[in-house]
Amino acid sequence: MNNPLFGDTIVAPATIPGTGAISIVRISGPDSFRITDAVVKLKSGTISGSEGYRIHFGTVDGLDEVLVSVFRAPHSYTGEDALEISCHASRYIVEELIRRLLSAGCRLAEPGEFTRRAFMNGRMDLAQAEAVADVISSTTAASHRVAYNQLRGRYSSELASLRGELVEMTSLLELELDFSEEDVEFADRSRLLGLVDRTLSHVVRLADSFKDGNAIKNGVPVAIVGATNVGKSTLLNALVGEDRALVSDIAGTTRDTIEEVINLGGILFRFIDTAGIRETEETVEKMGIDRTYRKISEAEIVIGVLDGTSEEGTIMCGLKEIISKMDFSSQKLVLALNKCDLMDSKDANKKVISINNFVRSSDIKAYIVSISAKSSSGLPSLHSALISLESHLISNEDSTFVTNVRHYEALRETASALSAGRLALTSGVPADLVAEDLRRAISSLNQILGTDLIDPEAVLHSIFRKHCIGK
Amino acid sequence: MNNPLFGDTIVAPATIPGTGAISIVRISGPDSFRITDAVVKLKSGTISGSEGYRIHFGTVDGLDEVLVSVFRAPHSYTGEDALEISCHASRYIVEELIRRLLSAGCRLAEPGEFTRRAFMNGRMDLAQAEAVADVISSTTAASHRVAYNQLRGRYSSELASLRGELVEMTSLLELELDFSEEDVEFADRSRLLGLVDRTLSHVVRLADSFKDGNAIKNGVPVAIVGATNVGKSTLLNALVGEDRALVSDIAGTTRDTIEEVINLGGILFRFIDTAGIRETEETVEKMGIDRTYRKISEAEIVIGVLDGTSEEGTIMCGLKEIISKMDFSSQKLVLALNKCDLMDSKDANKKVISINNFVRSSDIKAYIVSISAKSSSGLPSLHSALISLESHLISNEDSTFVTNVRHYEALRETASALSAGRLALTSGVPADLVAEDLRRAISSLNQILGTDLIDPEAVLHSIFRKHCIGK
Repeated sequence: MNNPLFGDTIVAPATIPGTGAISIVRISGPDSFRITDAVVKLKSGTISGSEGYRIHFGTVDGLDEVLVSVFRAPHSYTGEDALEISCHASRYIVEELIRRLLSAGCRLAEPGEFTRRAFMNGRMDLAQAEAVADVISSTTAASHRVAYNQLRGRYSSELASLRGELVEMTSLLELELDFSEEDVEFADRSRLLGLVDRTLSHVVRLADSFKDGNAIKNGVPVAIVGATNVGKSTLLNALVGEDRALVSDIAGTTRDTIEEVINLGGILFRFIDTAGIRETEETVEKMGIDRTYRKISEAEIVIGVLDGTSEEGTIMCGLKEIISKMDFSSQKLVLALNKCDLMDSKDANKKVISINNFVRSSDIKAYIVSISAKSSSGLPSLHSALISLESHLISNEDSTFVTNVRHYEALRETASALSAGRLALTSGVPADLVAEDLRRAISSLNQILGTDLIDPEAVLHSIFRKHCIGK
Repeated sequence: MNNPLFGDTIVAPATIPGTGAISIVRISGPDSFRITDAVVKLKSGTISGSEGYRIHFGTVDGLDEVLVSVFRAPHSYTGEDALEISCHASRYIVEELIRRLLSAGCRLAEPGEFTRRAFMNGRMDLAQAEAVADVISSTTAASHRVAYNQLRGRYSSELASLRGELVEMTSLLELELDFSEEDVEFADRSRLLGLVDRTLSHVVRLADSFKDGNAIKNGVPVAIVGATNVGKSTLLNALVGEDRALVSDIAGTTRDTIEEVINLGGILFRFIDTAGIRETEETVEKMGIDRTYRKISEAEIVIGVLDGTSEEGTIMCGLKEIISKMDFSSQKLVLALNKCDLMDSKDANKKVISINNFVRSSDIKAYIVSISAKSSSGLPSLHSALISLESHLISNEDSTFVTNVRHYEALRETASALSAGRLALTSGVPADLVAEDLRRAISSLNQILGTDLIDPEAVLHSIFRKHCIGK
């Protein structure tokens, strides 16, 4: 690289020192080789004299024996000359090694700075750079696949190709303005309309995928509802059970509080805190109930719990209450007839049939399972019901999902600009006004891809500060 | 490697997944290349066809883009064909990658198994293999240097060379037995005596270094003693202060409880729990005091605390009490005249001079500092005193220290066998009895170096189970 974008050379640990067997220290920038040659003595030769994609055994005086991996620009993660030094996973060694590299001329990298350089040097677009953090923090097959597809650039390349066509057509439109007195039409209007329609439908589809994308990344929101003492909290504990420790353990979560999240069949389910509901039903009146309603409205799935040991009349009354709170256009229902350990199976079957008949007659859809939250019996059926309801999240390997709020907002802006442009086109509005709408759409797409950012520093800072040091 | 010692190929994460930017998965064994070729698709060519010390970019289908570092036997850590796969630091990716490598024919490595293979394949001796865990857990410059010197093999090579000479001389002695009727002397007795003396002095010096080596590794034991209400616990808190969190953070400590350890000038100081002392002085009588005495006897440094605001007579009385409890042949004393924030400097100076005069007249050595534990004034002087007393631990970069109890015991056995052999030699005892003592000495040295282990499986198991997975 003859004209590096960045003059300084950065260093950071790429693993957490003090854990594991090996630690990696990462270096990138124009002076990487010279600086490292000053700190690491190779068995033979120098790093500066090495080819790329080579490993060298070396010694850091009195400190450690290390392996140095050499990457020559532009064939490195950052696109710059870069190195990875592999040493023993001792905090003392990593700190001392970095101290020596700093004295020799490196600067400590900021969070996400390696990935930021990769983006600035054109090794990946902004959407790919953002996917790096998502790939690292993914904990399920579904969330990993979505993040990985974004990292591989499929999502970006579709948008980039549509953006390219839009730029071309808009330029033609703008060219017409220069010849406005001659009344020429460089941009074929029907071809332009076709392009706008195609782009609009793609962008709308992507924006619509955000709900699912968000569910894949952060968990499908589930509310457990029902009257008091039907066993809601027992069921929550049984569902979350042993998985709780595993989930609280996830590092780098962006949520403020640790929520109860379980992984079923590769899909995350996030339980909306309904602890408050139980309390408020008994103590505070109106305000508590309002809050309950609002919480339930956030859920994609409602688990309605019914006490199987109650009279059938009481059960049906509870069922109607649950159904009345739901919006079936966007919410799905699972009915759990609880306490089946205290019922004989004949009684349980009879009640399930009654519930089923009522559900059918109301023309709504619901899974019905009989369970015992206390003894955990019937829980596998409940698990299958939840997975079936969300199987679309994992069934189509090729679907693209938007998981990033920033992208979602940019896509909505793009769609709105394209709709305005379409209207302008079909109403025979002058070319300059159409071009203005299309430029607005292009600019929104740019915010996703990272081309011609309106306020580059602000956008890049807010994206990369969320990365960890060394990435 | 045509005849590998181990038939199976092992895999383990070498970093803790879910933290940092990069994770490393490590593979070693005869099928490393074939198995990894089945899981990782390179951009061009195959791993099996690669030279050693090369890095390849590859893809794990639908999972991640990775870098594969290739090491060909015997030029690898283990001495076998080995690989390091560098992927994104996601727990999901690491688990899935290892799952695929297991399906393709790997076995999950046991703790320390990579280092165990390195030892078994002759890449390092046992003392070096043991040093790997010490290098990783070292937290100070001094403890790192000792562990690193052992890892580099200096400690072993000195012993191995003496062992080699002993083996040679002993073989000559034993040869004489075959010709016993002819009364020949293959082994030059004066050369043998010289060798035994040299080895004995080396081994004794090493065994004697254990006290210092242990202090370097686990901290110099320090006891804070004095009458009630002189400010002992305030001083302990002031000394440990902000470092406490840092110290409790050390992973892999072999101690059952977290002790109060501070790092001063690259030396660890470990404070013996004197909380009990204060209590027992006030409540339980004889038993408590006995326990106090025992605890103080474990200390290498005693910090005697005196209340500067007391009458001079009371101070001197407390001083005598402290001195009476100490063993000056093995213990060092620092006297801290406390509460100097409540004294005028003239009074403080007068009392320091009196203490100094008494110490001189008693023909003992002690550092005297005036401090205020409450306001932390004078603490830097106390720090310097502690560092000066232990400067031998860091002054000589070339000293070898024994830090390992197993080695210490083997060295003492070696010394005892050599002493017996020396006595036999000088008393004109028959050659076969001398040879028997020397064989005993050699066998003890073998236990350190790992040659001809008496019960290999037991020794190796107890050593390597303390290592982490992936090392």
